Amino acid sequence: MSFAIASAVAPAAEGRWRGEIAPGWDIAGAANGGYLMSIAARAATLASGRPDPVSVTAHYLAPGTPGAIDLSATVLKEGRRFSTVEVSMVGTRPLLHLLGTFGDLGDSASASVDPALVLESPPDLPDPDDCIEVEPTDGFPPPFMGKVELRLPGDLAKAWSGVGAPRVQGWLRLRDGEPMDTLALLVGVDAFPPAIFFSDFPVSWVPTVELTAHVRRRPVPGWLACSFTTRFVTDGFLEEDGLIWDAAGNLVAQSRQLALVPRG
Amino acid sequence: MSFAIASAVAPAAEGRWRGEIAPGWDIAGAANGGYLMSIAARAATLASGRPDPVSVTAHYLAPGTPGAIDLSATVLKEGRRFSTVEVSMVGTRPLLHLLGTFGDLGDSASASVDPALVLESPPDLPDPDDCIEVEPTDGFPPPFMGKVELRLPGDLAKAWSGVGAPRVQGWLRLRDGEPMDTLALLVGVDAFPPAIFFSDFPVSWVPTVELTAHVRRRPVPGWLACSFTTRFVTDGFLEEDGLIWDAAGNLVAQSRQLALVPRG
Repeated sequence: MSFAIASAVAPAAEGRWRGEIAPGWDIAGAANGGYLMSIAARAATLASGRPDPVSVTAHYLAPGTPGAIDLSATVLKEGRRFSTVEVSMVGTRPLLHLLGTFGDLGDSASASVDPALVLESPPDLPDPDDCIEVEPTDGFPPPFMGKVELRLPGDLAKAWSGVGAPRVQGWLRLRDGEPMDTLALLVGVDAFPPAIFFSDFPVSWVPTVELTAHVRRRPVPGWLACSFTTRFVTDGFLEEDGLIWDAAGNLVAQSRQLALVPRG
Repeated sequence: MSFAIASAVAPAAEGRWRGEIAPGWDIAGAANGGYLMSIAARAATLASGRPDPVSVTAHYLAPGTPGAIDLSATVLKEGRRFSTVEVSMVGTRPLLHLLGTFGDLGDSASASVDPALVLESPPDLPDPDDCIEVEPTDGFPPPFMGKVELRLPGDLAKAWSGVGAPRVQGWLRLRDGEPMDTLALLVGVDAFPPAIFFSDFPVSWVPTVELTAHVRRRPVPGWLACSFTTRFVTDGFLEEDGLIWDAAGNLVAQSRQLALVPRG
């Protein structure tokens, strides 16, 4: 089942949408947070008539499991270029609340002639064919890895059990050549194993409290180069910062999440 | 008028609060975004009974001007440690929508015995007395600088017109010795002039679309060491990342905002 189908929503009533959490998009039984965010964001794009998320924030209320979901989307403001929308997603209980600004990034090509300042480069990765593909398992790596194609440089793939810095970099795309649109980028910002897992920091579970993604541009077709880092684990929290670059070297998304670091 | 008073809200009805945008907290006539966020967050702390913002996101719908505001706060989830709350703020028109997770960071002292990972240090700043205080004017620096006390190292104060990197670092506290609580930190993450103003990038106005702040700890009394940077100005957007450290060297807040870069 493609991402487009797995994240589809159908109109149910004025401002209300019906969707489904598809099987296989989970990690240890809980649906991937980026995937849930993309479903809520899709409802927001339909409610607002603006096709692209620009800045979206999700707060996670409960783990999502496969099955029917109801979404209600409210357009809080309709501006000239952007609309602000909130979405609540409810399964057997409230799962997620999203607040975001949506627009049309289709004019990126013209915007790109604006002056730009880019002080950081895409990660320096080996060719995707020289990287190691992360294959899904029933445990870890999770079933969700069957939905995205994730390739890690050899040294990182070996560091899996945690010996390096709290950083992970690699290639990402959807399976079966499905193109990544700006909604799929919301899956991308949460698709890698937590950066902290690649360090020797003693933690095995970092539940997301909140995830914010800025979508800066529609990606061109091809592999996405991704980089995720954690700089601070303090007082029971950590942040994870992400950058996603498209195959043409454009910054397409930037993300940050706040996660809990359960006490050992 | 203290921050505590300028950000006060009073119960109006079930789930509704009344407040006021105080004069003097503006920049070119529009109330500071962090200040508006702190008022909405205060309503959320009262609605939820959780005293501290943990992760809060505000989307800005219209500029705020002095006068009465109505706030409605809805507790979306009440968990064991955290509550998720949304707040809408309306003046003469809708001004702001906030989504956040709130908790009690009063147990920070005990949490601090947890293992921590801190990969970046507070900025290396001259003593506050050796820095230059930013004084409010009717123009720029804005009236808002009369509400916070902001001190910049000499080289940055001179770079004001834009010659260096898109980065600003300095000291911050409230005026008249008023202590900075976690709500005041929300003012702090938006209190400095935009980092991009310190570069030679040609922009004079960067309206905030969205601001997210993670509050990691209650600050100890004293000056806060702050650092704000922009790495990417692309396709008409920029992000600004902030870090705030307390006088004991603890990371107390981390922030990111997405702002528009109007075409020249």
